[in-house]
Formats: sequence, C-alpha cells, structure tokens
Amino acid sequence: MNDQAANLQDFKDKVLSFAKERDWEQFHSPKNLSMAIAAEAAELMEHFLWQTPEQSRADLLDDTLRAKVEEEIADVLIFAIQFANMTGIDLSAAISAKMERNAEKYPVEKARGRSDKYTEL
Amino acid sequence: MNDQAANLQDFKDKVLSFAKERDWEQFHSPKNLSMAIAAEAAELMEHFLWQTPEQSRADLLDDTLRAKVEEEIADVLIFAIQFANMTGIDLSAAISAKMERNAEKYPVEKARGRSDKYTEL
Amino acid sequence: MNDQAANLQDFKDKVLSFAKERDWEQFHSPKNLSMAIAAEAAELMEHFLWQTPEQSRADLLDDTLRAKVEEEIADVLIFAIQFANMTGIDLSAAISAKMERNAEKYPVEKARGRSDKYTEL
Amino acid sequence: MNDQAANLQDFKDKVLSFAKERDWEQFHSPKNLSMAIAAEAAELMEHFLWQTPEQSRADLLDDTLRAKVEEEIADVLIFAIQFANMTGIDLSAAISAKMERNAEKYPVEKARGRSDKYTEL
Repeated sequence: MNDQAANLQDFKDKVLSFAKERDWEQFHSPKNLSMAIAAEAAELMEHFLWQTPEQSRADLLDDTLRAKVEEEIADVLIFAIQFANMTGIDLSAAISAKMERNAEKYPVEKARGRSDKYTEL
Repeated sequence: MNDQAANLQDFKDKVLSFAKERDWEQFHSPKNLSMAIAAEAAELMEHFLWQTPEQSRADLLDDTLRAKVEEEIADVLIFAIQFANMTGIDLSAAISAKMERNAEKYPVEKARGRSDKYTEL
Repeated sequence: MNDQAANLQDFKDKVLSFAKERDWEQFHSPKNLSMAIAAEAAELMEHFLWQTPEQSRADLLDDTLRAKVEEEIADVLIFAIQFANMTGIDLSAAISAKMERNAEKYPVEKARGRSDKYTEL
Repeated sequence: MNDQAANLQDFKDKVLSFAKERDWEQFHSPKNLSMAIAAEAAELMEHFLWQTPEQSRADLLDDTLRAKVEEEIADVLIFAIQFANMTGIDLSAAISAKMERNAEKYPVEKARGRSDKYTEL
C-alpha cells in the first residue's frame, strides 16, 4: 500500500473495523475525536519546539526522529479518518472544496512569496 | 472526487502545486507545518468545547455547523498532506504501519469496550 | 508558597532566573514558547480524551491522576509566565483587561446558563 | 493591578465569581476546561505560524499584534485559573513543585545552552 495506490475509502473501512472490533464507537464522538486529533498534532509538534524552521528540515534526515514523526502524523490521520467515519464526511470532497476556497482567498498574484493571512493581502 | 476514488498521491500533487505556485515552500518547514496542523485541529475542537460527547454527535446534524466542521477537518488534512510532501513521508505506508502497531498494543480481547491506554490494559 | 500569598512577579523572576542560568533565553522566542504552551496544554487534555465531562470530575479524586494533572497545569503556567517575561507583558493587567471585555461580551442576563459564543447570544 | 501586586487567589476568586454569576460551573469540567486551555493556546500560536523565531520577537514590537497576543495569553491563564478552581489545585504549590523537579531534570551544568529533552542530556 502506498500513496499512488491508496484509496481513502480503504483506510476509512480499516479504521472503522478496528474501532468496531474493540467496541470503541461509544468513545468516538466528534468531541472526543477532535480532542484526539489535537492531542496527536501536539505530539508531532513537540519534536520541533526549540529548533529553527531550518533545523527542523535537517532534523528529519535522522532516521530515529523520522520514524517517530511518521507515527505521529499517522496518528493524526487515523483519528481524522475515524472522525470522518463517525460524522459521515467525505474527506475527498471536503479537501477539494477547501482547496477551491483557498485558491479564491489566496490568488497566486497576491499571495506569491507572502505568508500573510488572506485578510491582510 | 470522493473517498471511493481518491488517491492520496493525487491530493499530495495538488497541495504541492498549490504551494509551489505561491512560492510557499519556503514557509513549509516541518516545524511550521506541525504548528499549522495543531492550530487547525484546535479550530475543529473549538466547535465542541462545552457540549457533552453525546451532544457533539447530535450537533453535527445541523448543516451550518457541519459545513464549518468539514472545512476544519479539510484544513487539518491539507496541512498533513503538505507535511508529507515536504518530508517525503508516504502517508499510506505510515498509516498501515501504525495500525499494525495499534493492533498489537490493543488486542481485541483486552481492549474491547475499554478506553484505557495500552499501558493500563 | 500558596495562592493566597503568591505574587505573579515572584514567579516571573524565578522562571526567568531558571532560564537565564541555563542560557535558554535564546530558545525562548514568542513563537517557540507559544508552541510549548500549546504542547503542554495538549498533554493536560490527553488525560481526559475518552471520559465524559462528568467522569473527568470524578477522575480527579484519584491521587495518581491528580499528581500528573498538577504537573501539566504547572507546565502550562510556567511557559505562559516565561512568555510574559520574554515579551514584557504584565499578566495581571492582561487578565484584568480580558475579564472586563468578557463581562461586556457575556452580560449576566444573556449568558446565564448558556454555553453559546457571544456572537450567538 | 499588576504583577508586583497580584495575588493568584484574587484572580481565582474573580474568575470563579464570573463563572458562578453566569451559572457556568456546569460546563467547567476538567475535560472541557482542558480543551479550552488548549484551544486558546492554539490561538496564541496562530500568530506565529510562518515567522522564524527571530521574526516572532520583532513582531511583538507592533502594538496591534501585541494587543491581540495579550488577549490570547490572558485567555489561556483565565481558563487555567478556572481549571484550578474547579479541581481545587493550588497553582502556586504546583508551579513551585514542578520547578523543583525541572531543576533536578535539567541541572545547570548539563543543560546550559542546550535545548535537548532531559532524557537526552
């Protein structure tokens, strides 16, 4: 399985089965899953607290850190996928719609090379 | 595009093009992207601060809230996808590997119906 | 030292000395400290991911959990205090000003018993 | 009121009265308050997503940003204070105890000028 072949629905099915087998849907309310996504995102972030942004690029060449970071980003995604399962959200449609909105908010000619929020452009 | 058809690599390509067109890769260090993922996850969570978990399930029947929530979860995923782009992580492989580890940490017979951390099982 | 006697300036001085002795001010930019506050807040939150709000009240009667939670909330405050040190913010003035604004945004007669955001009242 | 004069108990009393007047204690479980602290911490962090750490120091010379940042850090503290109210935690004791532990984990001679986690020192 790799990103060339992976189908988001396959992951949704696997994550849902995992939860169902353990009778965990009772814990997987939108509130609780949103907390879990945020908690895992914070664990990812913790690896980069004190580095400069440039150092954080270089740090990922280290295999030990890289393996940890892969686990953290996977955790974020697994809970996001289960959030979609429990709320009936189609992630692909949601991502596509948001990218269209982002393209409107950040037109290339205005946003190029700038990190300002769209309200400041 | 929907989750039956969506291929993670397609999204990676789209998100990367979006950033490249705007010359934003300079801002997209692992450190900065991990902050963005965490910030978007917190925005998702903010919709559920004061509700009970059960209320958060019911709340998502409301179309206005649902539309906002779809945008927030999309933002989390877009930044996670760009994190994978900038670090060369294969998300599908990372998710699959993590789910295998989770299956070991949370065997069905021990974890069924329990929300305890694996260290407590 | 307890909350009856504690003076915020004393804590600011202690936290600043701790950082200075270790030559850590170089790491304590507003960006990095804001990440540290968020990361510690997430660690606090992780103790309550799957509980109902009511369970989270009861859980704190357990001394082991309570000791962990005291450490996490202390970490949040220590980094917040150092954030104030490094930015020259007077926390007491900031808290007082924000509470006045909150009182305007959430008048008692409108907000009583309701968890809605002020924009919804 | 300023940090020279401020007594943490005074703030605890004010924050508790504010919540009581609005009958908000019902919403202020440890779980919910931990989410609120994390959400406010993320809002603080959002001001610094794309800046370098050095830029974030310079940015705070801007009065508009500074005013926003003061509000966000105040929000973090107000919810942390209410967390202490609802759980009976003495913040001053918790901070003092944690600083002692930190001094043990990060002895000056080992930690000077280094941002490594204590487990790496």
